[in-house]
Amino acid sequence: MRLADLTTPALVADADVLDANLRTMSAALPGARLRPHVKAHKSTALAKLQAALGHRAFTCATVREMEGMAAAGLGDDLLLANEVLDARRLGALDARVTLAVDSEPTLEAAAQGGVREVLIDVNVGLPRCGCAPEAAGRLADLARRRGLSVRGVMGYEGHLMGVEDRAKRAFATGDAMALLARAHADVGGEVISAGGTGTYDTNRVATEIQAGSYALMDTAYAKLGLPFRQALFVLGSVVSVSSAFAVADVGLKALGMDHGNPAIEGAKVWFCSDEHVTFASDAAPRVGERIGVWPAHVDPTVAYHERIHLVRGEEVVGELRVDLRGW
Amino acid sequence: MRLADLTTPALVADADVLDANLRTMSAALPGARLRPHVKAHKSTALAKLQAALGHRAFTCATVREMEGMAAAGLGDDLLLANEVLDARRLGALDARVTLAVDSEPTLEAAAQGGVREVLIDVNVGLPRCGCAPEAAGRLADLARRRGLSVRGVMGYEGHLMGVEDRAKRAFATGDAMALLARAHADVGGEVISAGGTGTYDTNRVATEIQAGSYALMDTAYAKLGLPFRQALFVLGSVVSVSSAFAVADVGLKALGMDHGNPAIEGAKVWFCSDEHVTFASDAAPRVGERIGVWPAHVDPTVAYHERIHLVRGEEVVGELRVDLRGW
Repeated sequence: MRLADLTTPALVADADVLDANLRTMSAALPGARLRPHVKAHKSTALAKLQAALGHRAFTCATVREMEGMAAAGLGDDLLLANEVLDARRLGALDARVTLAVDSEPTLEAAAQGGVREVLIDVNVGLPRCGCAPEAAGRLADLARRRGLSVRGVMGYEGHLMGVEDRAKRAFATGDAMALLARAHADVGGEVISAGGTGTYDTNRVATEIQAGSYALMDTAYAKLGLPFRQALFVLGSVVSVSSAFAVADVGLKALGMDHGNPAIEGAKVWFCSDEHVTFASDAAPRVGERIGVWPAHVDPTVAYHERIHLVRGEEVVGELRVDLRGW
Repeated sequence: MRLADLTTPALVADADVLDANLRTMSAALPGARLRPHVKAHKSTALAKLQAALGHRAFTCATVREMEGMAAAGLGDDLLLANEVLDARRLGALDARVTLAVDSEPTLEAAAQGGVREVLIDVNVGLPRCGCAPEAAGRLADLARRRGLSVRGVMGYEGHLMGVEDRAKRAFATGDAMALLARAHADVGGEVISAGGTGTYDTNRVATEIQAGSYALMDTAYAKLGLPFRQALFVLGSVVSVSSAFAVADVGLKALGMDHGNPAIEGAKVWFCSDEHVTFASDAAPRVGERIGVWPAHVDPTVAYHERIHLVRGEEVVGELRVDLRGW
C-alpha cells in the first residue's frame, strides 16, 4: 500500500526516523538506564521495538496501559508513575508492578490492592503529584511498616521539559534533582526514577530516565535542539481551496491542541475545527493534494487514533496499533 | 451501580439534563426543522433518543459517522456536511445519502462514488469549506449535468456561534444567511441547511438547523444564555493534595483543550497535563474525593471516550456507547 491510498486523516510515522530516534536514545541510555514511558505512544507494538533494543523496564501513566503491557508480555518491570486510589487491577496483574505513592491514602490503596512494590513520588517543582521532599522518608517508613517494598523515589521535573536554552535547562534540572536526591537519602532503595525527553542528557541524578516523546516527537520538543527528529505527522487531504486559504481534513479530533496549532510545511495555520485545519500557503494547494500536519503535542494526538501507519518514502511498510487507549 | 463505583476518569451525562435539552430543542424545532449533528456526541444511542423525539434526518461530519448511523438503522436521510475526495464508502451505504460539495473535484468524487444527492456548500463567512455564494449556481448546474440531484444549499455560520451578545449574533446571522439565500436563489431545491446550537433560534433562513452541542453542552456554549444546560462532565478522583493545590485524574487525554481549560466548581484550574488537572480550591479537597470537571468543548472531549455514563443523582442509570469515533 502507498501513502496515497490511506484514508485521511491518518496518523503516520516515518519508519526510518522512528528507528533512528530509538537507536539514538538507546545509545545514550542503554538497557536499564532508560525506562521508556509508554504514555507518549500508547502502543505495545512500539514498546516491543524499545524492548528489542534492550529496555525491559517501562513506565506507564494509567492502569489500562499497565494491563496492556502485561498482556503483551512486556511485564518484566512495569512502573505506574501515577497515584491511584484503587489498585486491585494492578495487584491482579501477572507482571512485576511498582506503583508511585505520595500520601497515606495512596500507600494504603497500594497495599489493599495487592501491590507489593512502590516508589515514593516526590514533588521536585512541578505543581502536580508528589509529596514534599522532607516528607518522603516518613512515607517510606509507613510503607515498609505496611509490608510494602520501597524500591526508591521518583520525581518528574516536567516544568523544565520545555526550557529551550539547554544550559538553563541543565541548571534547573540540577536544582530539581537536588530535592529528589535529598528525599532519596531519607527513603533509600536502589531506584531514582525521573527525567523525560527534554532532560534525558542533563539529568545527572536519576538512575533511570522516563522518556517517551523522543520516539515520535512533536513540534514543541523539536524546538529544543535534541538529536531526535519528528517522526509523527497526521496525513491529510486538501478538501477545499479558496483564493486566500485552503482546508484539509485534519482537525481537533485528530490532534492534541493544548500546545497550540499544528504546523504545515510552507504554510501558516489559521485555526482548527472538529474535522478541519484552515491554512494559508504560497504553494497554492489543490483539492485532493495530500499534506502532512505536524502535531504540537504527541501524547494527546496519538490518543485520538487507532493506529500509526509506518511509512518509508511513499510506501506504507507496516502499522503500530495504538492499543493502550482509555483507562 | 453508583457514581462512586465508576473507574475515573469517566465521561458522564446527567440523564435528566440531557432529556430536558433534547425536549427543549425539539419543542423549538420539531421534526424535520432540526437535523441533529452527530459529530458532537458520536453516539448512535444518543441519536436514537433524538430520533424518538421525531428527528429522522441527521447531519454527520465523517464517513465513519455516516456508516455507523446507517448500520444503526438511522439512515432515512443522512447528510455528510463535509467535502470528501473518495465517496465510494458513501455510495455503498444502504441509506439516503446527501453529500456536501463545493468544487468540481468534490462534485466529481460524489458522482464517481455512487452518491446521488448533493447540497451545494456555500461559504457564509467562516474561512473553511464552501464555494463563494456567486459560484453556487454554476456548480449546481454542473452537478445536475453530471446526473446528481441537487437538494439545495448548506452554509455553516460557525464564526458566529460564540458571539455572546444575542442581538449581535442574530444580526450577524442575518447577514451570513443573506449570502446563503442569494446562493439558494441560483441553486434551487427545497433544502437550506445551516445553523447550530448558537444560532438555532436566530437563524430565520435555514429550512433545517444542524445543531449538535445542545444535547450535552459545554462551558463555551453555556456562556450564551441558551435554554440548554451542561449535561456533560468528566468525573475525576482527587489523587494528590498539597497545601496550595490539588490534583485530579482528568487530563489532556480526557478533554478537548482547544477552547482552553475545563472548569471545576468552586475552584481555579491551573493547568492540565496528560492524565492530570491541577487546581486550587478553597474547599480543601481530600485524596479520594470525586469531582466533576466541565469540558470547554464538547466534541473533541467526547471523541476521547468509549462511553458516556448516564446518571441520575448518584445512581448510574445507563450508558451511551460512543461508537462513531475514527474515520
